[in-house]
Amino acid sequence: MKTLKAALVQQSCSEDTSGNLSNSITAIREAARLGAQLVVLQELHAGPYFCQTEDTRCFDLAEPIPGPSSDRLAAVARECGVVIVASLFERRAPGLYHNTAVVLEKDGTIAGKYRKMHIPDDPGFYEKFYFTPGDLGFVPIDTSVGRLGVLVCWDQWYPEAARLMALAGAELLIYPTAIGWDPHDTAEEQERQRDAWITIQRSHAIANGIPVISVNRVGFEAAPDSSGSGIRFWGSSFAAGCQGEILTQAGTEGEQLCMVEIDLTRSENVRRIWPFLRDRRIDSYQDLIKRYCT
Amino acid sequence: MKTLKAALVQQSCSEDTSGNLSNSITAIREAARLGAQLVVLQELHAGPYFCQTEDTRCFDLAEPIPGPSSDRLAAVARECGVVIVASLFERRAPGLYHNTAVVLEKDGTIAGKYRKMHIPDDPGFYEKFYFTPGDLGFVPIDTSVGRLGVLVCWDQWYPEAARLMALAGAELLIYPTAIGWDPHDTAEEQERQRDAWITIQRSHAIANGIPVISVNRVGFEAAPDSSGSGIRFWGSSFAAGCQGEILTQAGTEGEQLCMVEIDLTRSENVRRIWPFLRDRRIDSYQDLIKRYCT
Repeated sequence: MKTLKAALVQQSCSEDTSGNLSNSITAIREAARLGAQLVVLQELHAGPYFCQTEDTRCFDLAEPIPGPSSDRLAAVARECGVVIVASLFERRAPGLYHNTAVVLEKDGTIAGKYRKMHIPDDPGFYEKFYFTPGDLGFVPIDTSVGRLGVLVCWDQWYPEAARLMALAGAELLIYPTAIGWDPHDTAEEQERQRDAWITIQRSHAIANGIPVISVNRVGFEAAPDSSGSGIRFWGSSFAAGCQGEILTQAGTEGEQLCMVEIDLTRSENVRRIWPFLRDRRIDSYQDLIKRYCT
Repeated sequence: MKTLKAALVQQSCSEDTSGNLSNSITAIREAARLGAQLVVLQELHAGPYFCQTEDTRCFDLAEPIPGPSSDRLAAVARECGVVIVASLFERRAPGLYHNTAVVLEKDGTIAGKYRKMHIPDDPGFYEKFYFTPGDLGFVPIDTSVGRLGVLVCWDQWYPEAARLMALAGAELLIYPTAIGWDPHDTAEEQERQRDAWITIQRSHAIANGIPVISVNRVGFEAAPDSSGSGIRFWGSSFAAGCQGEILTQAGTEGEQLCMVEIDLTRSENVRRIWPFLRDRRIDSYQDLIKRYCT
């Protein structure tokens, strides 16, 4: 049995970028001490979720990759001998920014980057203002712990993204994410949303016969407009096996480090008896590249 | 609020084709009495699941559509004034057979057919022997109760199929299905499989913002080879709303008629705040029509 020991770092963030990164690094070191080979951080873990408003000053938070934050994390990857999936606000050129996941190899080199392809925009999540849609495509990143299908947050609602990563040989899907409740919604609506978010990601594991790791931020962040509104990030970070079965899950409140051991041999075993890739009707999927068909 | 009252008919089947159809018809009449506008039957409800073995004599079970069974169901559709989704073994030509869903309008006319596109084949489910893969594509069927995205069983594992139906304007996904346990599997494996089956179908509702109805057969059917093996069909027929929330669900044992009222206005409301169709990266989905990318 070939296994992978992974860690999920569910965090709350303050305005203090350096302090947030220090918290992440503390968790990475603890994860390594517990035997982790792979550590996954949540979306934009270096600060509060700034997309609750459209403010040009927020672009000052962006950094090149490589840059100060990725360098700091790279040093920890090397120090601890772990692969790290980090999520940073990338400054690519003046006026050109991406929501980018960077994968740091255990020797501190950059194994690869993924620029968020699907960009949301709805009240409180004004991402289309900040993030240019990714142009690197759905390309898994090769690392010493396997070929990682790294996607980011809103991508999680798209079966196409997961499928493309699987078709390109991803052995594991990874979603750094930042999703939460509007506190004005009813408890029933809030639970439907959280459950839908878990269900759709478990379904990517099932459809593709590969495990999924999703790491979400946690805690309340007030909107900067002092309207009293804000987002209660629901945590619930989890890992699922290749039949979608939950292997570990964090709570909806509070920071948490979740360790999980993933059996990497199960994927081929499950795919042999549920051979979904064998039977895809690629002769009849042309309309998937249309916006709509009526 | 525009609603649709639908009925799910979860059945066990004997060797008696006429008796099985009579059971279906009794349930359809009861559903109509309870106010159903749409009645969904399970996959191949006219008989036992014959694909547990490869036997040329089973082709004798196939019928043209229209044909005796569809005529009988059409008469009931007209009598009760309900739309019926039936699932028949279609004889299209000598030596050419399909696993076909037929939708009967409430006036007894045939609203349309869907020929199962994804054909499974694994021990106990030798469908590739019997069923030519469908050639009608993923085309929803217009009826008096809406545009129905009818798919069949194995299709349920393919997000592509659900997406294509949604892109073609389907307002509701419908899966007649016949899936069950190998009694030799452990209880844990059995539960993982059933839960995966529910999860993947709920995910199609979520990804596309439309409700899902899935109707499965129930009960044990011994393999015809008298090896003592067989399939325990797990029932669990269900309807889910457009956030994947379960609206009704049948048990794992025993025949059951489930009634459900679906709010058809919720789909657009949910899509407005979760506008997944807006953000699909159709410029980067070309590889979905490849078998594999490495």
